[in-house]
Amino acid sequence: MHFAKPLAELIAELERLPGVGPKSAQRLAYHLLKVPVSHAAAIENARRTLRFCRLCQDVSEAELCTVCADPRRDHGAICVVGEPRDVAAIERTHEFRGLYHVLHGLMSPMDGVGPDQLRIKELLERLEENPEVILATNPTIEGDATALYIARLLKPLGVKVTRLAHGMPVGGELDYADSATLVSALEFRREM
Amino acid sequence: MHFAKPLAELIAELERLPGVGPKSAQRLAYHLLKVPVSHAAAIENARRTLRFCRLCQDVSEAELCTVCADPRRDHGAICVVGEPRDVAAIERTHEFRGLYHVLHGLMSPMDGVGPDQLRIKELLERLEENPEVILATNPTIEGDATALYIARLLKPLGVKVTRLAHGMPVGGELDYADSATLVSALEFRREM
Repeated sequence: MHFAKPLAELIAELERLPGVGPKSAQRLAYHLLKVPVSHAAAIENARRTLRFCRLCQDVSEAELCTVCADPRRDHGAICVVGEPRDVAAIERTHEFRGLYHVLHGLMSPMDGVGPDQLRIKELLERLEENPEVILATNPTIEGDATALYIARLLKPLGVKVTRLAHGMPVGGELDYADSATLVSALEFRREM
Repeated sequence: MHFAKPLAELIAELERLPGVGPKSAQRLAYHLLKVPVSHAAAIENARRTLRFCRLCQDVSEAELCTVCADPRRDHGAICVVGEPRDVAAIERTHEFRGLYHVLHGLMSPMDGVGPDQLRIKELLERLEENPEVILATNPTIEGDATALYIARLLKPLGVKVTRLAHGMPVGGELDYADSATLVSALEFRREM
């Protein structure tokens, strides 16, 4: 290990970020050492001023995030996602008018992530006025397991629980779709 | 045009194949000129012995294709696709146990393909004993238009018409999905 100890610690910290491997962590670390003080201040400022929305747990500047605080949003539907970036993805569509709930992770026994590490308790606490919960966790093993777990919790409470459709990506062709996607597309088929 | 007339004709013919542009047509034509006689015979043999299944219109050796002739298949569901290769894609999943119907194309006003050029009449003729029609045309503009057209024909006849789900491809991540796919995934969401 030829890194100075503070640098090694910074790299180790960055490696824990999702999607950042050892190489990217090194590159990021060196970059961060070189950023002007104003950048460093921006990072420090973001860390100091951002927190999690009291309701949806998304990253927020105020106690309530802009979505939860917006009375024009449909408070009758909560879209449950794994990460804050998934909220951003759905907001980019400009189509969904309901609220969100960020779990901050997905169940993954391999990585030691069980339901207790996710913000499921916080979801249960805000169900009263929300007749529909849309489970929009990724269509992966972890996302499906998490959706199933939450569905089993909520259904006995009389909540309408739906799952984001797995199917053919728009613009795709059957001939190029993998079998798992085709099978899901058949399962999720809908009456016209 | 520097091609010998028979070659130019062959290229023109190959260009009409789906997904084959002028360059590929040239490459294919030159390849076909070089194939051993046994290959040429295989092509000629395929042309002579293959026909379309009387029921589903898929490519078949006999009057009925192996799927339509199989009594173990579920004759209560017809999966409608654009091309024979789409049947192959769904058969690869080993999950769908119903029958098929091949339209041999999708509606495309830009290319002058209207409903009369598709095998829709043949579909209407075999509806009696098939309570469900699954429209599995590609999730493209042409595929959606074709599905909508057929749905409008069939629903007044009391047929249950479903559409293959558009949604998140299995294993994908919301963050990487395009907006149109996310919107469809929300629309096609299903109660758990």
